[in-house]
Formats: sequence, C-alpha cells, structure tokens
Amino acid sequence: MVKARKYVVKKDFDGLPKREDFEIVEYELPPIKNGEILVKVEWVSVDPYMRLVKPNPVPYDIPAFQVGLVVESKSPKYPVGTRIVSHKGWRDYVIIDTNKPYSDSEMFSQLYKLPDLSGFPNSLAIGAVGMPGASAYLGFLDVCQPKAGETVVVTGAAGAVGSVVGQIAKIKGCKVIGFAGSDEKVKWLEEIGFDKAINYKTADIKTALQEAAPNGVDCFFDNVGGEVSSIIIYQMNQGGRGVVVGSISAYNEDFSNLPKATMLQFPILAKQLKIQGFSITECDLNRQFEAHKELSKWIRSGQLKAREHVTEGFEKLYDAFVGMLKGENFGKAVVKL
Amino acid sequence: MVKARKYVVKKDFDGLPKREDFEIVEYELPPIKNGEILVKVEWVSVDPYMRLVKPNPVPYDIPAFQVGLVVESKSPKYPVGTRIVSHKGWRDYVIIDTNKPYSDSEMFSQLYKLPDLSGFPNSLAIGAVGMPGASAYLGFLDVCQPKAGETVVVTGAAGAVGSVVGQIAKIKGCKVIGFAGSDEKVKWLEEIGFDKAINYKTADIKTALQEAAPNGVDCFFDNVGGEVSSIIIYQMNQGGRGVVVGSISAYNEDFSNLPKATMLQFPILAKQLKIQGFSITECDLNRQFEAHKELSKWIRSGQLKAREHVTEGFEKLYDAFVGMLKGENFGKAVVKL
Repeated sequence: MVKARKYVVKKDFDGLPKREDFEIVEYELPPIKNGEILVKVEWVSVDPYMRLVKPNPVPYDIPAFQVGLVVESKSPKYPVGTRIVSHKGWRDYVIIDTNKPYSDSEMFSQLYKLPDLSGFPNSLAIGAVGMPGASAYLGFLDVCQPKAGETVVVTGAAGAVGSVVGQIAKIKGCKVIGFAGSDEKVKWLEEIGFDKAINYKTADIKTALQEAAPNGVDCFFDNVGGEVSSIIIYQMNQGGRGVVVGSISAYNEDFSNLPKATMLQFPILAKQLKIQGFSITECDLNRQFEAHKELSKWIRSGQLKAREHVTEGFEKLYDAFVGMLKGENFGKAVVKL
Repeated sequence: MVKARKYVVKKDFDGLPKREDFEIVEYELPPIKNGEILVKVEWVSVDPYMRLVKPNPVPYDIPAFQVGLVVESKSPKYPVGTRIVSHKGWRDYVIIDTNKPYSDSEMFSQLYKLPDLSGFPNSLAIGAVGMPGASAYLGFLDVCQPKAGETVVVTGAAGAVGSVVGQIAKIKGCKVIGFAGSDEKVKWLEEIGFDKAINYKTADIKTALQEAAPNGVDCFFDNVGGEVSSIIIYQMNQGGRGVVVGSISAYNEDFSNLPKATMLQFPILAKQLKIQGFSITECDLNRQFEAHKELSKWIRSGQLKAREHVTEGFEKLYDAFVGMLKGENFGKAVVKL
C-alpha cells in the first residue's frame, strides 16, 4: 500500500487564499488495476488559474499540472520508468487510468509522455514547454498575429507566460515592452532581450509607455487587466490586436463588484481594435504539442531562456502558490517534491 | 453663377456642440469644368460620427452624406437629372469632380448613383440603404457572425444603425433585445419585432437583462459604450462576440479623461469573448453595395422597416444634429433641404 497526500480546497477563497482554506489529506492508494499506472510526482505547478477555476463546489482537489515518474504500471504504453505530464492537482502520488480518453471538457484528464527536453530540467514540461508556454505561443501568435517591426506590449512580463511571450515577440522581429512589478524584474527582462521594461508600481505608466512606444502599440498581450491594461489599450494603433490571457489583478477581487477602469469601448471603436480572451483549454492538444515542439527548439538554440522559480517540498505548495499570486516569482513558479 | 451655402465648424466642440461652433458660409460656385457636375442637394444626413471625426483642424467643413440631383453636367456618366449619393458635408449646392477616383483614405470622395429604392424615399440612401445600413449589416454579420437561436443585444437600438441591426438579427433567426432611452422608443422597437426592449434610463439594467436573456448574450452590437455596455458584456456567454460600432455616450466627454466603467478584461478572459471595433470606412465600397442590395431587398419585402426622423430646412441642420446626439430621433435622422 502506498500512502498519498493531496491538497483539498475546503473553503472558497476570499481575497488572497489563506493557509486554512486548504487541507492536506492523507489516504492509502489501492492496488493498481489493468490500464492504470502509479505515478510518483516530482514537479508540481502553481499557476494563477488555480485562484480562479473551481472544478466543483468545495471541498475540491485543487487542479495543477505535474511531471511524474511511473513507479508501477499495468499499462504497456507507460512502462515503469516513463516520465509523464498530467493534470492531477497538488499530490505526491497518484494513480492514473491510462485508458480514460482525453477530453477537452474534463480538465483533469490530460496525460502524455514527457516531451524531449534535451537535458533541460523536466520541470520545463509544466512551464515553458507546457501549458504556460503553449498559452504564450498560441495566444500571442494566433490572436495577435504579430508582424516583424511591430510594437508589442506584455503585462505580467516577468511571469511564466509573459516572459515567454516577450521572447517569442523578439524572435518574430518585434519591438517588445514589458511591464513588471519590481526593478529587479525590469532588469532581468532587459537582460533576456526586452527592448524596454517598466516597473508599473513606480512609473507614470502613460508617460513611460509613450516614451517607450512613440509609434504606438500594435499587439498587446495582457496577463494583468485593470487600469494598467486600460492605459495600454488607449495607446494602441489603428487595427491593433489585444489578447487577454490572464487578469491576475482581478483574481482576488469580489467578482460581483469588480473595480472600474477607464472605459475601453471608445478606443476599441476609434482604432478598430480587436480584443480577445484566450484560454489554452480551447486549443486542441495537437496544437499545444506543436507549440511545445517549437518552444523546445528555441530553448535548445538558446533563443528562449526559460527561467524557473523553484520551491522545494510538498508542504511548501501553499507558500509557492501565494508567493506567485503576490508576484514573487521570476519566470515560472514550480514546486519540486 | 450659383450661390451655395455650407456649414463650417469654426470652433472645436466642447461637450454638446453649440450653435456658435458653426458658421454658415455663403459663396459663389464657379462654372463647372470638364468631368464635373453641379449637384442640388436634397437630403443631408446627421450622424453621431460628425461629433467625433475631424477631417482637419478648425475651421473645417463638417462631413456628411447627402442625396442630390445633378442639375448641370460635364460628365457623361452623370447626366442632368441623375440622382447621386456623395459625402460632401452640410451644403445645399456642390460641384463634384467625377473623375477623381474614390479612395478609402479620402473621406469626402465617395460618389455613386442613387441605388434602386423601388419607390421608397430617396433619403433611405443615406440611411438604411446607405452608410448606417451597411454599418449595421457588415458590422453585425461579419463581426458577430450570429447563428439562428442565439441571443443578440443592441444598444442605441432605436437609432439609425441599431434599429436595422435588430431587424437583421430577427431575419437571421435570433432573439433580439434592444436598449433605448425612452418608453416610446421601447414601444416602437417591440412593434418592429424586437423580442424585448428596455429603457436604460429607468430600468435596473443588470436585472432587466438577466430576465430578458436568461441564457446569456451571444452577440452584442454596441452603439453606446460606457457602463450600460459593460453590464451587458458581463452577461455574455462563452465565446460571445461583441462589435463596437459607436460609443455615443463618450462623444461629448473629454477624451483625455474618459469616465471609468467596470473593467472588461476579466469577462473577456473568463468567457473568451471577442470584442472588436468596426468602422464602415474599413470596408471596401463593393461590400457596402452588397449590403445596400440586401437591405433594399428586405425593405421591399417588408421584413425591414426603415423609419426616418425628418427635419426640414438647411437652417435646421444644427438642431437636427444636436437632437440626434440627444437621442430625440426614432430611426434615421435626416434633413430635407
């Protein structure tokens, strides 16, 4: 018998999630059945969507991607020693039924073998070569359709998704401006190739952006929302494209009474902007695999730097999660078990 | 020699345009040259965009569509007695160079023969079978891509564009809810086929819309902007499409300091909405002619009622314009000279 642990959300989040909103549940795993594998989880992801997405009313298992090692197997496709990527939440051991088909509507059903990472850390498979990387790649390229020479703005630029978007934009020949929440992040973003990074906590956002993008903004990749995002949208050019992939500034708000920001309808009209929400859950898995392939190619060639912010220990998952929500991470926040 | 009159904007609008912002200039027209026609203007349009669009700094000729009669001609294509549609502003007589090619970037250059209106008033060519009708048709069908059975919301529903959008949506098999600014308008909209109309000035907008659209909103055609529009966007369904074709609530505001409204990034993200600004000036003239053709077909068949709000007299153009901006019109506001 294997003892497993998992995090259960037992109380709906109100503002920033509290430690007592979670319970760590210990339970015994039954013997595996035909078609099943027992996975020892090695890396667990903490992402903004976990603040937002409830698979069902409390109590519920918090969703999350992980990389794990198959330690017992009754599935020829996943023999012992295989490394897999799945979406089974914050757990240390998990039994997965490999015969259960993947379904877009079943958020916990993703399962695939770890992609070839050419010696780079396996954790990339839940970061720059996983869901966040694919969100950056598909959200930016499909929705914004950037052209070389255009000016791209990214908010949450030092996060898992934003830092990848900015680098993809550079690969595509764009000028890239990133917004982040500290001078250290600004420094790092300029090191990895952003043409300009701006600390939104200290800068006069409107003026700083006018100086950084004197010809206006063509593409906007928004992870943050709120007034910063509105100010950027007001500086977009005719026919500009905006994609909203996160809205982290709102996640801890009361959704029935969200804050106000400068109205957007007017610039949307005046500049014939297209602003679109994007969720990777809308993209089929094959398109995500295409993105993973392209992203890992860029990582191997050194064109894409995939920084990770690693926390160690199953017990630290809550801290890693809240730290990420507070913006403490540079790049992708992951937890090593 | 023909004496002509035109309205010149001599002072930038500040809030609602004032009578003294305009000057009526009288001048003598020279003899027409080869390729030119002299047009006696019969109908002039007043539209919201005139509050917004400045062809150049003051003083400038206010832009506007008109229907006119060719009374002198040195152009075989437009003999005397031809009726034409052009975009020459608020004038009573005008000389048009018919050899000057149409250019999308030159807002004053549109010129074409009056379409066949089968006995309906010629003024329709600057209304439901003109620019406003084409904006309704192309903005709604191209951007919102409505499907039969979907729920459509229109703001400014009793205006020139909104009243046409709602009726197109009914023709396409949708459920249509309109917002307008008086009980009389609400009554009229329900008479012409809107499933439900709501007086935004007196209703609790959120609750009224929840009751009228219990399954949520799939398509949103926005003429108005501001908080009403934000409330509607919060009730849109997954994958909903919004088109912003007007933002009349903002036109009299200080553009450097627009009012705030509940932030939109969050619902755009959560429902993967697509919100797009649309201007008919982006569509080539042939697509507009297609729209005119389809619209006049529906008018002939009785499926589309094109109500007009007629003011008489060149001297009344200012009053008609401001009345329209205040929402006094039912359907298309036009001025008969």
